[in-house]
Amino acid sequence: MQCVKVLGGVVGAAALLGLGIILGHFAIPKGTDSPAPSASAPQDLDLEILETVMGQLDANRIRENLRELSKEPHLATSLRDEALVQLLLGRWQDPESGLDSAGTSVYEVLLSLPSQEQPNRVDVVGPTGDILFSCQRSEENVTGEQGDPNVVPPYAAYAPPGTPQGLLVYANQGSEEDFMELQRRGVKLQGSIVLTRYGGVGRGAKAVNAAKYEVAGVLVYTDPGDINDGKSLPNETFPYSWGLPPSGVERGSYFEYFGDPLTPYLPAHPSSFRLNSDTVSGFPPIPTQPIGFKDAKVLLCNLQGTSAPDSWQGALGCDYKLGPGFRPDSIFPEHSKVNLSVHNRLELRNSSNVVGIIRGAVEPDRYVLYGNHRDSWVHGAVDPSTGTAVLLELSRVLGTLLKKSTWRPRRSIVFASWGAEEFGLIGSTEFTEEFFSKLQERAVAYINVDISVFANATLRAQGTPPVQSVIFAAAKQIPAPGPSSLSIYDNWIRYSNRSSPVYGLVPSLGTLGAGSDYAPFVHFLGISSMDIAYTYDRSKTSARIYPTYHTAFDTFDYVDKFLDPGFSSHQAVARTAGSVLLRLSDSLFLPLNVSDYSETLRGFLQAAQQELSGLLEQHGISLGPLVTAVEKFEEAAMVLGQHISALQKGTPDPLQVRMLNDQLMLLERTFLNSRAFPEERYYSHVLWAPRTGSVATFPGLSNACSKATNTGPGSAAWAEVQRQLSILVVALEGAAATLRPVADL
Amino acid sequence: MQCVKVLGGVVGAAALLGLGIILGHFAIPKGTDSPAPSASAPQDLDLEILETVMGQLDANRIRENLRELSKEPHLATSLRDEALVQLLLGRWQDPESGLDSAGTSVYEVLLSLPSQEQPNRVDVVGPTGDILFSCQRSEENVTGEQGDPNVVPPYAAYAPPGTPQGLLVYANQGSEEDFMELQRRGVKLQGSIVLTRYGGVGRGAKAVNAAKYEVAGVLVYTDPGDINDGKSLPNETFPYSWGLPPSGVERGSYFEYFGDPLTPYLPAHPSSFRLNSDTVSGFPPIPTQPIGFKDAKVLLCNLQGTSAPDSWQGALGCDYKLGPGFRPDSIFPEHSKVNLSVHNRLELRNSSNVVGIIRGAVEPDRYVLYGNHRDSWVHGAVDPSTGTAVLLELSRVLGTLLKKSTWRPRRSIVFASWGAEEFGLIGSTEFTEEFFSKLQERAVAYINVDISVFANATLRAQGTPPVQSVIFAAAKQIPAPGPSSLSIYDNWIRYSNRSSPVYGLVPSLGTLGAGSDYAPFVHFLGISSMDIAYTYDRSKTSARIYPTYHTAFDTFDYVDKFLDPGFSSHQAVARTAGSVLLRLSDSLFLPLNVSDYSETLRGFLQAAQQELSGLLEQHGISLGPLVTAVEKFEEAAMVLGQHISALQKGTPDPLQVRMLNDQLMLLERTFLNSRAFPEERYYSHVLWAPRTGSVATFPGLSNACSKATNTGPGSAAWAEVQRQLSILVVALEGAAATLRPVADL
Repeated sequence: MQCVKVLGGVVGAAALLGLGIILGHFAIPKGTDSPAPSASAPQDLDLEILETVMGQLDANRIRENLRELSKEPHLATSLRDEALVQLLLGRWQDPESGLDSAGTSVYEVLLSLPSQEQPNRVDVVGPTGDILFSCQRSEENVTGEQGDPNVVPPYAAYAPPGTPQGLLVYANQGSEEDFMELQRRGVKLQGSIVLTRYGGVGRGAKAVNAAKYEVAGVLVYTDPGDINDGKSLPNETFPYSWGLPPSGVERGSYFEYFGDPLTPYLPAHPSSFRLNSDTVSGFPPIPTQPIGFKDAKVLLCNLQGTSAPDSWQGALGCDYKLGPGFRPDSIFPEHSKVNLSVHNRLELRNSSNVVGIIRGAVEPDRYVLYGNHRDSWVHGAVDPSTGTAVLLELSRVLGTLLKKSTWRPRRSIVFASWGAEEFGLIGSTEFTEEFFSKLQERAVAYINVDISVFANATLRAQGTPPVQSVIFAAAKQIPAPGPSSLSIYDNWIRYSNRSSPVYGLVPSLGTLGAGSDYAPFVHFLGISSMDIAYTYDRSKTSARIYPTYHTAFDTFDYVDKFLDPGFSSHQAVARTAGSVLLRLSDSLFLPLNVSDYSETLRGFLQAAQQELSGLLEQHGISLGPLVTAVEKFEEAAMVLGQHISALQKGTPDPLQVRMLNDQLMLLERTFLNSRAFPEERYYSHVLWAPRTGSVATFPGLSNACSKATNTGPGSAAWAEVQRQLSILVVALEGAAATLRPVADL
Repeated sequence: MQCVKVLGGVVGAAALLGLGIILGHFAIPKGTDSPAPSASAPQDLDLEILETVMGQLDANRIRENLRELSKEPHLATSLRDEALVQLLLGRWQDPESGLDSAGTSVYEVLLSLPSQEQPNRVDVVGPTGDILFSCQRSEENVTGEQGDPNVVPPYAAYAPPGTPQGLLVYANQGSEEDFMELQRRGVKLQGSIVLTRYGGVGRGAKAVNAAKYEVAGVLVYTDPGDINDGKSLPNETFPYSWGLPPSGVERGSYFEYFGDPLTPYLPAHPSSFRLNSDTVSGFPPIPTQPIGFKDAKVLLCNLQGTSAPDSWQGALGCDYKLGPGFRPDSIFPEHSKVNLSVHNRLELRNSSNVVGIIRGAVEPDRYVLYGNHRDSWVHGAVDPSTGTAVLLELSRVLGTLLKKSTWRPRRSIVFASWGAEEFGLIGSTEFTEEFFSKLQERAVAYINVDISVFANATLRAQGTPPVQSVIFAAAKQIPAPGPSSLSIYDNWIRYSNRSSPVYGLVPSLGTLGAGSDYAPFVHFLGISSMDIAYTYDRSKTSARIYPTYHTAFDTFDYVDKFLDPGFSSHQAVARTAGSVLLRLSDSLFLPLNVSDYSETLRGFLQAAQQELSGLLEQHGISLGPLVTAVEKFEEAAMVLGQHISALQKGTPDPLQVRMLNDQLMLLERTFLNSRAFPEERYYSHVLWAPRTGSVATFPGLSNACSKATNTGPGSAAWAEVQRQLSILVVALEGAAATLRPVADL
């Protein structure tokens, strides 16, 4: 991984210089004389406090946090996971640097774990039943850490137990299209074992799609073409580079929803109503097991049949055939099959969230939430400990100011360490279920910093439109790590940008899917949310994600040597997220620019007009009411913007500001409709629900049109298009109503 | 109706005296020098303003309002209904006594109307097909008003068209038990026409229950035993008393849900998605028609068969037989049948709400809503114009103070005149659907005054527990109409009281079903709501409701002569509702006593413990978590009460008060769960959903237990019991969380 090594070296050298500049800039004390917070004072963001925090966020402390956090494997609910609960509690209850209060909440959740007595196996079995080849059941112990007895063997969480045996077929990424292609080519799928590679579709979808073709079992591997920029030899990979070693296996949850599988919409308290685990939906329907590419190569490079399409080929160094079965001239005799033995078990386990609070001085009933998960698949240095290391450093710096009575935020800050995220965002989802009402009433925003550093190149942020401005404001005032003298913002815009009709060239803010704990906050509760990290130079790597993701090679040394030597990117993320947190919790006027939603809505509307209106008109459906609703939103947002400017110029009454801030806080909530997507668990945000339709417009409309396209007039599918349009119009009109002068109806 | 006449006379005489006392007490000006409202001032309820309003609410103006409102029939969407829209707009836009703004919102809603060309008919048909007897197709013109061409003939709205013919069977009130009893007794129901009397179950339920037994058509009449305290002769009834004349027929909606039938959960804008009216659910499944008791007597007193049970007998002056068919010795030949011809049509019509607003001076984004419907079945003097007459007088008095700059409330007041309530609370429901987000965020409470005067005896109020205290506070300070010197409160407690564990003897506050426009506010939006009226002395009449309800005899003279001569009860309701409105809109601390929910929860819990815990334990279900949740609520409510007391003693910061008030306002919202009752449209309040189970506890639990009782262990019904318990526990824990100190989680 030459490109990354070079990048790493440059960053490492530059970090010391950058640190010096930043310390010089920020850490000069400027007389922060402890003001006694008073409810009547118009407390606003204090730039000196902000600079103090920026200066005190310490790269080396983040590094030491990471070392401790990733010292041992800490799978959800393991002893080490519980030990980290105590570590977090200890930090947040520290009399010198802790928060006002901290505690745990425990949920009894359904996890899926491999059997210790009966390891999962993938074998090639000859015609006489003898085992000809076995995939490795654990990763090679290349740095000592992989041999830790607490390393969980690779498995597909929630895949059902079973021992299917069949001829092997290569099914590319296991998408619907991939299986259709195999069927078109006459490759027999019934009873087969398919080998798929990670990417393209979600983990669980591979098994769901396969089962529709009566496939008996699914193998999944990571192709070096998708993760290592093609490198696959042991000496080209970790510990010699950031590359994935040939024995590395990506673990993961194959559950199709999120939250505890047995208690949808209810917190998983011991007494809570639970679905029957035999009939619960969302689990993969057939046995599934991930393997490393070293083993995948043995299987794939011996397949018979026609060559796979070009786009299905990878970097294992052979021509990928489709199967079924192995070539007669291969290392396996004719008619050899693959036997898959999965012995995963479902278990109810106690998973803890740790929650710590800094009480707001003026508006303690407004919560700015900042969280990350704590559990990992193995040592989890990158995922999630780069985020937790930043969380601990940020809470230490703020806690220290708090304990010294130097500072107390205007609003309350809630720090959270979520449990069991890797199994499906379980801790955070249970939290949103337990505190549904309170969070809907009072949460200003949710900041998620999961993996804080994927790589050293640039900031990467995802979020709903109202958070764009506060992230930009923060990023403009923090120097980027590295040799340049650019701000994080100016560096970011070089790597990822778009042309905004309103602002011109700006960095691209990504949208929020369901990849981390922000999902229940934005989709279920309608809370303005964001996810912040440092990431790749995409011109230098095409890796799907950092290569050792969810493997036993994701260790402290991996981060320290390859991802962020010097930890300056960690520090940059800590500063960015910390600045966003302070701005949200301390600013008199909430820095949520709701008018940035106008651009989103207009973009979605234009896509619908350009790509769907013809089809819709054929079915007598007009986009007119949607156009009107978007215009109303734009108008209301513009007028509100003028109102804000006017208020900011005067000396506004505290209640006037509160009323305005309530409008800003609650705008995101107005996009929720719990009846919009009855089959999509938790998804109720009409703008950010999953989109399966091809047109990049409002997801409900896009999906419904996609389903209706080939149905006749008057079909239920066309009725659903009209229903989705009405749901959208009502939501946008409601959003506009929330932004209008509050005494209008 | 001797008793009522006597009562009426006493009240009439006393009213003048009472008015004098009240005017003397309230109307002496006490220097209300127009203070310029300022956002920063801690504006609180001004007792002088309150007294001014009490003194200015004028009985005679209410009487004149009523005369105008009830001058002509004003069925929903009729020309006269639209004329009243203009009347309301005119009043609310009056420069001397109007509000800050007023406007209409129009919805395109599905009504059901009888055919003008083909009148509905009920005939007795002889064996040869000749018509032997026909029920009257309109009410007798006893006062001239019944002959108005705009009187809609009696019909069952939303009953389907059809012309069934069959032997007549008497089915009591048409409840499930009634039909089971008939089946037990071997009375053939298949193909029959059943005659039922109003009462016992809802209108639509009679047809739904009948259809399960393959009944072909349903007749419904009002038995004089149920409405007239047995009186049935013309000279015993209106215009000689308040009694229902023999030809009077109660119209009504037979739709099982509420809101526009075609647009559930969506405002009925022209462009909104609509269900197919052929397949929409909730309409009566078989033709149905209401008739007067004069006609019912002819049918019922000629029936053959065994005598109906004692509890099925009424006051028509004969022994009620069950049928089927008429006695051979009756006025009808053997085998005569009843032919029912229903020609109702579904029509999309434009229905208007009128909404008027007084902008709040300090917290314009907090809305106190006050509403009533405008549409009637015929002249609708009592229903709804007694309420609208009060609404207009109250808005006039407040509007006048406003225009004189004497007063502006702390919070915004929203007055509403709803359309198409009689068809199923349509206008109010569409309003809640259109402004869902805004109302959930900002509505403090909803005050409904539909029929303001049923009779002259006592106040009657229904509401959720937080409104009890503000109604009591208002009622204690207003003199009751009549000769006594009691307050409305002290008079009320004589007629209807209960022993509260907290307060001792208090007036009984009723619970809110779905009888008027409060339903969508409380059940769908979780807004603390109430309904206020003056009503009967139950020791003097057992009438189901005032006798001319939904008939062409509900006229101005009926009110003026029998219900409230002198209009002092109207005035009492105007004062009570007005005082509640002012207290809610002007008090610095919201007068919503959320701790009164503790008593409700404890009562429900005790009922569950006493009557369900044995059964639950047999199925391994513990009430323990529910007990804990109730205790947590009680504790949180108690601590909050102490916090309020402490705040009230000091000079609280405006934001502190706002934060507290937000807790009080939003408490009711925390009891909502949109997934709790998937089959009950709009019902999501876990404490006040319809209860069909016999145990007077939490409705979801009661209903689920009732359904599970006769199923085996492990049934889906028992799982539903557990699900309902969990939903309850989460809601109560969420409610407790909302009441706790805001910086705790």
